[in-house]
Amino acid sequence: MVSQKQFDPASGTRDFLAAEHERRERAFATIREVFGRYGFQPLQTPAFERLEVLTGKYGDEGDKLIFKILRRGEHEATGEADLALRYDLTVPLARTVAAYGNQLPSPYKRYAIAPVWRADRPGKGRFREFVQCDLDIVGSSSPLSDAEVVLALHDALDALGVPGFRFLLNSRRVLFGLLEAYGVPADLGPGALITLDKLDKLAPEQVVAELVTGRGLAEEVAQGLVDDLTAPDAVERIRGELKGSETGQAGLAEIDRLLRLTKDTIPAERIAFTPNLVRGLDYYTGIIFEVSAPGMPGSIASGGRYDNLIATLGGKDAPACGGSLGIERILPLLDHGDADGYAQIDVAVTVMGEELAADTFRLAAEIRRAGVRTGVYLGASGKFRTQMKWANDQGARFCVIYGAAERDAGTVTVRDMESGEQTPFPLDQAATELARRCARPH
Amino acid sequence: MVSQKQFDPASGTRDFLAAEHERRERAFATIREVFGRYGFQPLQTPAFERLEVLTGKYGDEGDKLIFKILRRGEHEATGEADLALRYDLTVPLARTVAAYGNQLPSPYKRYAIAPVWRADRPGKGRFREFVQCDLDIVGSSSPLSDAEVVLALHDALDALGVPGFRFLLNSRRVLFGLLEAYGVPADLGPGALITLDKLDKLAPEQVVAELVTGRGLAEEVAQGLVDDLTAPDAVERIRGELKGSETGQAGLAEIDRLLRLTKDTIPAERIAFTPNLVRGLDYYTGIIFEVSAPGMPGSIASGGRYDNLIATLGGKDAPACGGSLGIERILPLLDHGDADGYAQIDVAVTVMGEELAADTFRLAAEIRRAGVRTGVYLGASGKFRTQMKWANDQGARFCVIYGAAERDAGTVTVRDMESGEQTPFPLDQAATELARRCARPH
Repeated sequence: MVSQKQFDPASGTRDFLAAEHERRERAFATIREVFGRYGFQPLQTPAFERLEVLTGKYGDEGDKLIFKILRRGEHEATGEADLALRYDLTVPLARTVAAYGNQLPSPYKRYAIAPVWRADRPGKGRFREFVQCDLDIVGSSSPLSDAEVVLALHDALDALGVPGFRFLLNSRRVLFGLLEAYGVPADLGPGALITLDKLDKLAPEQVVAELVTGRGLAEEVAQGLVDDLTAPDAVERIRGELKGSETGQAGLAEIDRLLRLTKDTIPAERIAFTPNLVRGLDYYTGIIFEVSAPGMPGSIASGGRYDNLIATLGGKDAPACGGSLGIERILPLLDHGDADGYAQIDVAVTVMGEELAADTFRLAAEIRRAGVRTGVYLGASGKFRTQMKWANDQGARFCVIYGAAERDAGTVTVRDMESGEQTPFPLDQAATELARRCARPH
Repeated sequence: MVSQKQFDPASGTRDFLAAEHERRERAFATIREVFGRYGFQPLQTPAFERLEVLTGKYGDEGDKLIFKILRRGEHEATGEADLALRYDLTVPLARTVAAYGNQLPSPYKRYAIAPVWRADRPGKGRFREFVQCDLDIVGSSSPLSDAEVVLALHDALDALGVPGFRFLLNSRRVLFGLLEAYGVPADLGPGALITLDKLDKLAPEQVVAELVTGRGLAEEVAQGLVDDLTAPDAVERIRGELKGSETGQAGLAEIDRLLRLTKDTIPAERIAFTPNLVRGLDYYTGIIFEVSAPGMPGSIASGGRYDNLIATLGGKDAPACGGSLGIERILPLLDHGDADGYAQIDVAVTVMGEELAADTFRLAAEIRRAGVRTGVYLGASGKFRTQMKWANDQGARFCVIYGAAERDAGTVTVRDMESGEQTPFPLDQAATELARRCARPH
């Protein structure tokens, strides 16, 4: 006997059987519908890119997580790679913007819902193949674009039915203004922000220590920054500190503007200026946000404005903003109404003997043409009880019995699988009747 | 300046921009709908498998076309691979059947529409990343299963609107019976069939020559076989030759049964017993078929019964049959009604100044909530003409103009982008009115 392990999918990947697959696809369809209503359009790029398109874009740590594809044929023996599986959807976007510039609408509003691959250590809820769900606007520096990204993500989370989610909103300009107000030299800024981003994981004194020893800030500056950002009245404190900083004022203005632009769609309790939101990635240039949800540590969505990233990634220089739904983290939060009730078919059709098979097939075809998911018994048993068990196992709501008696009478017998009630119908009315009974509300 | 080439997708792969992506997705949705109506259920497996799951399954030529993934971390330097991109959807099916046996319905009727990767030399219409579209029934030896596969593929091609397609039908048992009738030793049979499969590419005398020199058949046997299979009255000839062969009779019986089971759904001109259909793959054990279509050399779909394959591929021993739509070859045959008219949005909303932006956003949100795809102008220009050009470029059918005059009057102006006609509407009726105008027939 071979071990079961032999047939498992590769480490960190998953097989999706029908029920789970359809649950995921339903969520993706909901998101696509919302993004489409905002005028975002889909983009699909290949699973792999030329290796040089990907390397050097994700930092040293990221580069190590790229799945590289071995050269082929006579070159295989070199042990070298020339292709790699995509690591995210942003680098392919940058490549696409560079490749198709003039063919794309301006601004280019695109979404992508597709798997990416990372050679991370697999763990609970961490996969090597997982779906990312991005939307971005390339080519617009308008604050309306930031607001539209936030609105579209909000509507998607709302349509998915994620309970209790909340947007945390900040601007990189607020953070830079704050550093400016504290007199932190510009070259120490980005490092200081990376450390301040740890305020949600480390104790405040640990962050202060790292700012001093690791980032070169003066003790009193570090303490002041951490005190401000962790105070219960952080928002008021920060607004006060930023009075003299032009950058800081611009940051506050863009936050206030975004709150104003979204206030009719996003209830006030679902979005708030959150000065201690930093985001570790240093490519953000303006608005930044994360979405939190009860019962899920970390964020379920995030994004912001990144005006220089497309150029850095090899695309043309273009202002851009965008966001991403952490769909693999969101899916477990959703209430799957019919999770246990996955039904392969609505109607099961018995086959009572070879000589009735052709008529049975025609009957099944008629029921399908009426739009009903219909399965015909494909087993070897002629026993009624065996076929009923099969119909039941398939989750069928009705079973159609067509035996010699029915043939002679020109009828079919329709069995309600729940009540067991059996009703005869004229053969030529069966399809319509079953379509009526199986009609599902949408 | 960098060359454009730098931004192309990797050789043999494609980027799908919105219009093409949606065209493909529409075709896939049509196919899923048909397969679902037959009670087939989706299965999704990972893009890559452990290398040993794939190697040795596709023959020497196939093995060379597998994209292998380099080991990672400290093992990268070995130049060895431990994973590989899936080469088809059948080996993952066999693995899945082995892994989830008891959790799957019996028989297991599954479909999969997903990309596969082959390191083939890219060429016109030949890609390294392409979508396969398979449906299979595992665990049923009933002839009803073969018929159901053929019917579901037929209905899918019909629903897609492929013009003039035709099923060519045969049975491996007919072919083995024919070899038996001609006294070809059993061990020469499979080789002889591989050569006979070339009758659609080579001249008859070339096939005869290869049968003699390459496959060890007697000249007169080779000539007789080729004459029978290429004769205008091949069907009658073969039926005659098979009179004394039990295998051949069984083959003819399964063909006749399939024709009987499908005759009410598949018009007679769309399916025919075709004795010279051989199919090169030697794993078929019963019914085999291909689908041809005018204007497309080769086949656009194919399949058959393969009772030993699942076990050979590492799964459990299970009878099986299935078929595959050559969707990449089918897509170019379809009439794309709206190919040139891809519209990102139905309604474009102008933004006439920063102070109107919040109201404009609320208006756009209302129109979206009414189910209409709506874009807001995200550019920097306040000029009416520029915004009209943008609305036009987006393919919008209507443009909503909301300026100071409209605000003061509590109205919006709706412009029909085709006629240029402008009509004022009360602000609170605009969304309903636009939804009515944009309602699309399904």
